[in-house]
Amino acid sequence: MTTPPDFSQGAAFVRGRYVPIAEAAIPITDWGFLRSDATYDVVTVWDGAFFRLDAHLERFGRSCERFRLDPGLTPAQITAILARCVRLAGLRSAYVEMLCTRGQPPWGSRDPRQAVNQFYAFAVPYVWIANEEQRRRGLHVVVSEVQRIPAQSVDPTAKNYHWNDLTMGLLGALDAGGDTVLLTDGAGHVVEGPGFNVFCVNAQGVLVTPKEGVLEGITRRTVLEMAQAQGLAVELRALPAHELRGAREAFLSSSGGGVLPVTRVDGRPVGGGEPGPVTRQLMQTYWDWHKLPQFCTPVKGDA
Amino acid sequence: MTTPPDFSQGAAFVRGRYVPIAEAAIPITDWGFLRSDATYDVVTVWDGAFFRLDAHLERFGRSCERFRLDPGLTPAQITAILARCVRLAGLRSAYVEMLCTRGQPPWGSRDPRQAVNQFYAFAVPYVWIANEEQRRRGLHVVVSEVQRIPAQSVDPTAKNYHWNDLTMGLLGALDAGGDTVLLTDGAGHVVEGPGFNVFCVNAQGVLVTPKEGVLEGITRRTVLEMAQAQGLAVELRALPAHELRGAREAFLSSSGGGVLPVTRVDGRPVGGGEPGPVTRQLMQTYWDWHKLPQFCTPVKGDA
Ligand SMILES: Cc1ncc(COP(=O)(O)O)c(C=O)c1O
Ligand SMILES: Cc1ncc(COP(=O)(O)O)c(C=O)c1O
Repeated sequence: MTTPPDFSQGAAFVRGRYVPIAEAAIPITDWGFLRSDATYDVVTVWDGAFFRLDAHLERFGRSCERFRLDPGLTPAQITAILARCVRLAGLRSAYVEMLCTRGQPPWGSRDPRQAVNQFYAFAVPYVWIANEEQRRRGLHVVVSEVQRIPAQSVDPTAKNYHWNDLTMGLLGALDAGGDTVLLTDGAGHVVEGPGFNVFCVNAQGVLVTPKEGVLEGITRRTVLEMAQAQGLAVELRALPAHELRGAREAFLSSSGGGVLPVTRVDGRPVGGGEPGPVTRQLMQTYWDWHKLPQFCTPVKGDA
Repeated sequence: MTTPPDFSQGAAFVRGRYVPIAEAAIPITDWGFLRSDATYDVVTVWDGAFFRLDAHLERFGRSCERFRLDPGLTPAQITAILARCVRLAGLRSAYVEMLCTRGQPPWGSRDPRQAVNQFYAFAVPYVWIANEEQRRRGLHVVVSEVQRIPAQSVDPTAKNYHWNDLTMGLLGALDAGGDTVLLTDGAGHVVEGPGFNVFCVNAQGVLVTPKEGVLEGITRRTVLEMAQAQGLAVELRALPAHELRGAREAFLSSSGGGVLPVTRVDGRPVGGGEPGPVTRQLMQTYWDWHKLPQFCTPVKGDA
């Protein structure tokens, strides 16, 4: 007698099979691991529906093309796999990752074009990149000396696992008593952090977010659309760290929690040291928009 | 009745067990994969002995420290694991990789300090980064526009899997009819390629190799020591691409084959278009030095 698989911690799609997340593994010889030769995307499920699934699938497709990876599946097929992972795990809200690895060229070859690319996916409970208290009080962000890997080396608009810069920066920030980290571009501008974009409402009341050298987050896009709907002045351009420090308000945007207030930078309060009115309005609207039919794709049953 | 495991393609050490290489896998949730939060080293076995094992173990230790990873094993314990992989695979010459991943912080945490790091290893047949014909004729190297990830972002002296720049550069070079690629540093200097350092014997007869922005290859060190033993003039400094193009000789250095001649750069011959005398002498000495007792550690039986 075999016990049925336990999907309660999450479910994964691994080489054609659905397995509990704890059993999901990739071959050690896959270049997706040995060369971080892979791309991915993360879409969330909230209250039984994918949020902006089309945007995530589209970005995943573009990331794959950029890195010359081919998951060999249509967006509809990917959707079906993601939905099945979510249902197996029995989740109403979830963090759902789709990914494509290079696979492995035939033995002896070092030609990436000869590899058979591999598609994987998994669904786990919704991930917040800030805990409840941090969301209420606001995060303390440390600006790091570590520079985000530049676009001349790795295209930041194609989602990738090249996170050593983010992780080393995060370790430094945590040691310094911060909650998380923002990397810079080598010219004194902040760019992004581990899993999020950054915004500020500057001293002039303008909403500013970095234009280049960052992943074009779907949450960032949502923030820009909400700002437009609310008639806020917006500027997409390089964001100097000192402008962030002197801002009225600041926040992060991420699929891992939406709009997340920042109330301290490098130990000093931003604005009044509390989540500001623009930030709070955007946080509210972010969750309200989870009810808009054009952004919702119900997690359907077996096709 | 169970068939005995087939180690003929290679053997791996995975969470305390020895498994055939085809079965070796890492959890999809390990940050070593999801954030390429890992380090590694590759040592070779030639004719039944590790070559410069101490140097590789020492570099591995430094890479781990740099990225705040702890394999939780002494060099002697690592050596025993590597040797066992080699013996299980029945290899007289082998490509042996040791690696340490971050593992995974407790669920919900994003603090790398809370993760239990994981050690893995595997041994597979010796890998040549150039095939026999390429070694005889010399490689055709294409200098890429892609810039190697700079040291301000990821420390290149700590061996890591951040290879997207190398892989995208390689794809471009292969498309252009080259055998492999050299990346640049954004100021017109060549730095390194996928799995190797670069040297040239310039128009003045001086052996030049990049000083910074590269992995300090153990083969590079061996080349520098051989050059010293032979009384060659050596310069460690930035190497402009045009100096390489105008060189008398050029070669790559890698654990995956030692000294590998380069006879064309961007479609034009280097020097006489054939492996030059300095290169050929170093190739010979490289293999001769595999018999020096101070560089050899026999692959021993079970401890
Ligand atoms: C580096 C980086 N920047 C920004 C983001 C935010 O993107 P999104 O809003 O699509 O989650 C992420 C998401 O994981 C990320 O990894
Ligand atoms: C990026 C890079 N540079 C250089 C080298 C050469 O180092 P070694 O001579 O120790 O093999 C390697 C080896 O894999 C490498 O990955």
